[in-house]
Amino acid sequence: MKKKNKKVNAAILIIGNEILSGRTQDKNIAFLSKWLNSTCGISVREVRIVPDTERVIVRNIKEMSRTFNYVFTTGGIGPTHDDITAKSISKAFKVKYEFHKEAYRILENYYGKSKFNDGRKKMAKMPKGSKLIYNPSSAAPGFIIKNVFSLPGVPSILISMIDNCKKYLVKGLKVHSRTMNLFTVESNISKRLGIIQKKYKKSVDIGSYPFFRLGKIGVSIVTRSTSTIKLKKINKDLINLVKSKNIKLLKI
Amino acid sequence: MKKKNKKVNAAILIIGNEILSGRTQDKNIAFLSKWLNSTCGISVREVRIVPDTERVIVRNIKEMSRTFNYVFTTGGIGPTHDDITAKSISKAFKVKYEFHKEAYRILENYYGKSKFNDGRKKMAKMPKGSKLIYNPSSAAPGFIIKNVFSLPGVPSILISMIDNCKKYLVKGLKVHSRTMNLFTVESNISKRLGIIQKKYKKSVDIGSYPFFRLGKIGVSIVTRSTSTIKLKKINKDLINLVKSKNIKLLKI
Repeated sequence: MKKKNKKVNAAILIIGNEILSGRTQDKNIAFLSKWLNSTCGISVREVRIVPDTERVIVRNIKEMSRTFNYVFTTGGIGPTHDDITAKSISKAFKVKYEFHKEAYRILENYYGKSKFNDGRKKMAKMPKGSKLIYNPSSAAPGFIIKNVFSLPGVPSILISMIDNCKKYLVKGLKVHSRTMNLFTVESNISKRLGIIQKKYKKSVDIGSYPFFRLGKIGVSIVTRSTSTIKLKKINKDLINLVKSKNIKLLKI
Repeated sequence: MKKKNKKVNAAILIIGNEILSGRTQDKNIAFLSKWLNSTCGISVREVRIVPDTERVIVRNIKEMSRTFNYVFTTGGIGPTHDDITAKSISKAFKVKYEFHKEAYRILENYYGKSKFNDGRKKMAKMPKGSKLIYNPSSAAPGFIIKNVFSLPGVPSILISMIDNCKKYLVKGLKVHSRTMNLFTVESNISKRLGIIQKKYKKSVDIGSYPFFRLGKIGVSIVTRSTSTIKLKKINKDLINLVKSKNIKLLKI
């Protein structure tokens, strides 16, 4: 992985009617976001979930690949009629949708010549010029074309492939975070929190998230920054706020 | 709820750094999608997850409210500095961001005059002309402006409020679905499945989703349509496919 000392961002495009209908609970967003940040220092700036509809995928790939450093797609790269990710991305980039020789060989070896039917062959069709993302669990590779990385929708298979994306990514600055869990309500601290946020406007993001735990309500204060020094400083300010208001901290 | 015998669609805009960073696993997408379809016959056509950044929220509200019949937002309507949904929506629609009299009264009653501080008052500020979505669990109301419905991010509170949206929605045709779980692999049935899909191109959507269960791999075939008659017909075709290939069905 190449290294670059600046902010690098990505977007995720989840492709699949089953996620949109609520039938399937998505698990790839949280996994990809955490992996991209912790392993590569890449921040996910936007996620979209779209149906298996060609013109919608084409439009979103065009928009997102223009706007973000990287785009990760999940879903729609299997053998059935509703798997149209590779074809749609080819259209978006105006390149041919054709057999990738190495992918074809990998799949033919995996299934054996006699069982390598049309559905299975379809998984070797990709945008012309794609690089492969190898798949150690079920052979069918993902692909990279321009700044778009296409992965499968089944979480366990996606997870098994993700490390094979690393060498193609430019590394950015990792965002570190600290969490403080307070037994109070948001509106008790919102004013002071706003003042602290202003002080660190350019270097730290403060998030405030209510929780219910041990039968009590509370607030998690999450500070996020590429600088651990700034994080230490802001956490001192937060401790002062907590002490001055006599708020109990939840120890985990 | 008014009734209309045509397709009605919606989009969901999830607002919050905590979802994008992977810190919090979203639960609202699946709940809202299911509720909108089963209760109102409204299909969710797109979901976006964006950070707590004003210009990004403004741009997405503009685009999505133009494209879809309804837009549901979650998150960013609390008392802290990172809660900027109401302000951003006001900007998107070029209306004033001001105190909503009834919301102000509800919150003042709930907290009591002496404890009604600035953070709490902020929750009564909304786009001018908003209708309220009452909140039976923690008082702070959501709001409706044009075709945008703004709800909180905490799933339990959102769930408690959702029925109060119903009367403002035009009801569409409900999408029914049937699932058939087969002990086979996708590539064994993909060709025939494609032919069946073509036959019912305009009336039924077929989705195909691999699963791992009871130590075996399989495929869930999900058929979705507004017509139960067409669903029965297509399921006969699917049963014929299953029989001709000698595939075992998983009974649940």
